[in-house]
Amino acid sequence: MKRIALGIQYDGAPWHGWQTQPDGHTVQDRLEAALLKFARTPIDVTCAGRTDTGVHALEQVVHFDTDIAREAFSWVRGVNAFLPPSIAVRWACEVAPDGQGEQFHARFSAASRTYHYLLYNHATPSPLLAGKAGWAFRPLELAAMQEAARHLHGTHDFSAFRAAECQAKSPVRSMQRIEVARRGDLITFSLTANAFLHHMVRNIVGSLIAVGIGKYPPAWMREMLEGCDRSRVAPTFMPDGLYLARIDYDPKWGLPQEAAVPFWL
Amino acid sequence: MKRIALGIQYDGAPWHGWQTQPDGHTVQDRLEAALLKFARTPIDVTCAGRTDTGVHALEQVVHFDTDIAREAFSWVRGVNAFLPPSIAVRWACEVAPDGQGEQFHARFSAASRTYHYLLYNHATPSPLLAGKAGWAFRPLELAAMQEAARHLHGTHDFSAFRAAECQAKSPVRSMQRIEVARRGDLITFSLTANAFLHHMVRNIVGSLIAVGIGKYPPAWMREMLEGCDRSRVAPTFMPDGLYLARIDYDPKWGLPQEAAVPFWL
Repeated sequence: MKRIALGIQYDGAPWHGWQTQPDGHTVQDRLEAALLKFARTPIDVTCAGRTDTGVHALEQVVHFDTDIAREAFSWVRGVNAFLPPSIAVRWACEVAPDGQGEQFHARFSAASRTYHYLLYNHATPSPLLAGKAGWAFRPLELAAMQEAARHLHGTHDFSAFRAAECQAKSPVRSMQRIEVARRGDLITFSLTANAFLHHMVRNIVGSLIAVGIGKYPPAWMREMLEGCDRSRVAPTFMPDGLYLARIDYDPKWGLPQEAAVPFWL
Repeated sequence: MKRIALGIQYDGAPWHGWQTQPDGHTVQDRLEAALLKFARTPIDVTCAGRTDTGVHALEQVVHFDTDIAREAFSWVRGVNAFLPPSIAVRWACEVAPDGQGEQFHARFSAASRTYHYLLYNHATPSPLLAGKAGWAFRPLELAAMQEAARHLHGTHDFSAFRAAECQAKSPVRSMQRIEVARRGDLITFSLTANAFLHHMVRNIVGSLIAVGIGKYPPAWMREMLEGCDRSRVAPTFMPDGLYLARIDYDPKWGLPQEAAVPFWL
């Protein structure tokens, strides 16, 4: 048995999220269907991080085990031939066990995750960014959002930004990086953490926007964080602009990952 | 009667081009249907430049005449309420006749048009740019394409890059600007001319790509231009990456046009 890892990019707009569902209309279902057609044997994949309906991935990482011998480029081109235009395999590689015999695992070997949230800040929506970016029509004050974001840096109980359905055992996460940048009418929120709670990025973005429009001062963000009360923070923001951008692994696994720079930066 | 001008942005992927058709599935049909709902009276619009199926507009300009008195922002918000997410009015303004009593006309008053062609140059296609960018998997040599493009600068008979169905009286056009730039895996072709022949941008882009992959030297572009023979140049390139970006008018009309910088630059 060989363990194969794949880098997957997808537009989440047409799909009911990542995880397999009875209706079959998910990214995982389509990927496994394409793998079945290519390999002519059922292949179940394990992903690094599940994404919700409408959420995109610049580079999702999955792994699976197989006896089938194919060149890396053959897994890329061959599987892509059976995928719709909104999903593509970007790279493939065999991942050998490490020196201690430990196996690579897309989810458990992940050291950190990076998400980008793309927001279009303009009086009228942009048809060219529909489904690809969130939209806020009120002018947003960048410096206030940046100051508010700094309160989330470090290790905290993020219960205030956690969905009710979240299944994580602990609400404690380590936010290694949280940045807000503007280029023209586009605002990008970039967050890196060891892991994220369910809806955590969209709840944080919604709250940062509430600060950006002047509804609350930046220090409100710390107050919300410390209050650990989901009912007091802003509503979950729309999925349209959310991108799973990058999963970081120990370099020992030798994955041929891409820079995962979004096309709008 | 007042003459109103509108700035329109649209994603062309879901539509059968700009111009009204019996099936009603065009941008003009949807815009006129939204105007009818908002104004409660039929309104026919005239556009600056028709776009083909799958071609986008950062800023198309249209005009129409009406007796209805509405504030500019009301035309924007009111009409947008009846448009699908892939089409939006970005601005509206009443355009008074000039000092000599001449009326503004979206098409005939246009001094020049600018198109961008966005190309994704990578070994695998990007699901996030599907329908929004053309795709070339072979590495492209930027300098060769830039040199080839320079041969098209100035006033020429562009018959070599003209579709068979083109209805223009003359094949002579003045190319004021033709630039090729790269940022990461994205290549942007920007062309400004007094006007364009049918399929002219896509035929030029297809030929520049043929130079970029090394199939022909840059001087082949001049040879093709001078030969005036459509059958010798590259096939019409896919519409996905083509954007009508900007229509330039005499400042005397006072249109509140946007910079029309594409979101990827």
